[in-house]
Amino acid sequence: MRAAIFSGPGAVEVGERPDPVIREPTDAVVRVVLGSVCGSDLWYYRGESAHAAGSIGHEFIGMVERTGAGVRGIQPGDLVVAPFIYSDMSCPHCLNGSTISCPAGGNFGNGQIDGGQGEAVRVPLAGSTLVPVPGSGHSDATLRSVLALSDVMSTGHHAAVSAGVKKGDTVAVVGDGAVGLCAVLAARRLGAERIITLSRHANRQELAREFGATDIIEGRGEEASQAVLGLTGGIGVDAALECVGTDQSIATACAVARPGSTVGIVGVPHGQVPFAETFFRNTGWRGGPAPARSYIPELLGDVLDGAINPGRVFDYETDLEHIADAYRAMDERRAIKSLVRMGAV
Amino acid sequence: MRAAIFSGPGAVEVGERPDPVIREPTDAVVRVVLGSVCGSDLWYYRGESAHAAGSIGHEFIGMVERTGAGVRGIQPGDLVVAPFIYSDMSCPHCLNGSTISCPAGGNFGNGQIDGGQGEAVRVPLAGSTLVPVPGSGHSDATLRSVLALSDVMSTGHHAAVSAGVKKGDTVAVVGDGAVGLCAVLAARRLGAERIITLSRHANRQELAREFGATDIIEGRGEEASQAVLGLTGGIGVDAALECVGTDQSIATACAVARPGSTVGIVGVPHGQVPFAETFFRNTGWRGGPAPARSYIPELLGDVLDGAINPGRVFDYETDLEHIADAYRAMDERRAIKSLVRMGAV
Repeated sequence: MRAAIFSGPGAVEVGERPDPVIREPTDAVVRVVLGSVCGSDLWYYRGESAHAAGSIGHEFIGMVERTGAGVRGIQPGDLVVAPFIYSDMSCPHCLNGSTISCPAGGNFGNGQIDGGQGEAVRVPLAGSTLVPVPGSGHSDATLRSVLALSDVMSTGHHAAVSAGVKKGDTVAVVGDGAVGLCAVLAARRLGAERIITLSRHANRQELAREFGATDIIEGRGEEASQAVLGLTGGIGVDAALECVGTDQSIATACAVARPGSTVGIVGVPHGQVPFAETFFRNTGWRGGPAPARSYIPELLGDVLDGAINPGRVFDYETDLEHIADAYRAMDERRAIKSLVRMGAV
Repeated sequence: MRAAIFSGPGAVEVGERPDPVIREPTDAVVRVVLGSVCGSDLWYYRGESAHAAGSIGHEFIGMVERTGAGVRGIQPGDLVVAPFIYSDMSCPHCLNGSTISCPAGGNFGNGQIDGGQGEAVRVPLAGSTLVPVPGSGHSDATLRSVLALSDVMSTGHHAAVSAGVKKGDTVAVVGDGAVGLCAVLAARRLGAERIITLSRHANRQELAREFGATDIIEGRGEEASQAVLGLTGGIGVDAALECVGTDQSIATACAVARPGSTVGIVGVPHGQVPFAETFFRNTGWRGGPAPARSYIPELLGDVLDGAINPGRVFDYETDLEHIADAYRAMDERRAIKSLVRMGAV
């Protein structure tokens, strides 16, 4: 089959990968309909982290083509959305909602297992991993929003859930990437009344407002912190959502989180957390990689109802043969997030 | 009046301090009945942190002697318990439960303001800070438990609350100091079913069991972590309570906290928190100095009902003239916690 192949920093090209086949009774083969590029894909693309050569990607929706004898809950012909990690949903961690810690689970697009940036994927633990999308004849906009549940919207939701966003809250979102924008949408969905977004790009500000942001702060660092504190009477926000992971963004989230609140952190921390400082203000930290599989069912309902439209973060689109452009557009910050159209439903 | 006076590391002696007087309409003067030495008092005693020369202490109960014209809610003759920080209970932080961040608040025993290791204390913001103890004729055991609410029991409770301990949970308490022991009691009070305590001292193990510990682990570091994981089928605990603050204890709490849980941390972090490691396991961190004033009312009810008896942590007792012994006994680890008897109710 045709698929994106990673061979080193900056080198994402389309080539041939073995056609996925059923290896375990719990496998399914899914023909990809839509895939996308994650902000975390840029880490290895830019050489900032290691990645095995071979298959890449971990965000996709597709049609089930074949299922192993042990697969329950899905069948050939189903439209499904895949969370970015597969899991068994029966171990103590999965049952506790921590699907990312499933001992039987693993990563898509890890060099060996395909991950949605190609024509098809062998999905391990398919019955527990894939979530069927009910109904038929969904619009393209709906399908794009379903795709967003694979990772980016689940991650934004995780930031909001981890910070304990509740009805009436004032929230600050640090980061105007696709995750930050989805965090705005998630905070609004959970009932936040005021959502302050840090953004310096007109197109992202516009989408943030569409998603529910009530205030936009254009500064960064100390200037941004002071601006948020100014908007909140010096008190700070009920929930700060950290969606970047740099020293500066972590420090900003820390500075604007009111005493006693919890920073929801989903930007992989590349910087050091000012732990002692937050300790003395009773500010906590929660987050990490989102347990997308646990979140998808409730978010999917809202997507299908039209209540949320996280697919709006895809502002660049191409096909598999041009997937290198999808990476370049994000790397050069021309795109918030790239969608790769593979096939029809 | 007579009071403990700090003049430098190792130097805590009894001497003369000015008799406290009403300076602000919101002040009260409290004659101290029982005071105690906090584990954090040992930091400056040992020269590990700075402290102004002069008054020390921040844990006490006493009788209200005089009140300023603006004091509401307490009156001369009331038996009261003081949280370790005074606060106005009317600012946004106090109303949000974060009394330690009250801009009008401050520390007792800071060199200038007395703090309970002396015959009397001028209490700022007295009406909002001091909690009256209802009833009369309380036993000495009850008074000792009321004293424990000033800091140590409120801090143990804060660890449990921050970690979200709930009915049926399996909890690990790292640290068998007075705070750790109170954390055991707090976890039991919140309904924990299994409480694993790390302790290597027979007398502390005994008190831990009395407070509700179901399992005692004698090892430390990696050995202790493995033992806790072994007791929980490799899963980890629902809530890890970090009551020490060293690199080793933080690492242990981190290692035994199950994915998706929150470490309740009340040991002031002297070590570095393994943030990235816990991030990838979705383990959060919450805690800090306890908002004792917010917790005292509900804990006081349980003390007066005899449901909890945190005063059991006081296993050394002396009077004001011998307060240096109270410090030495804790410094040399002969005492879990020292009580200083000042006067009668």
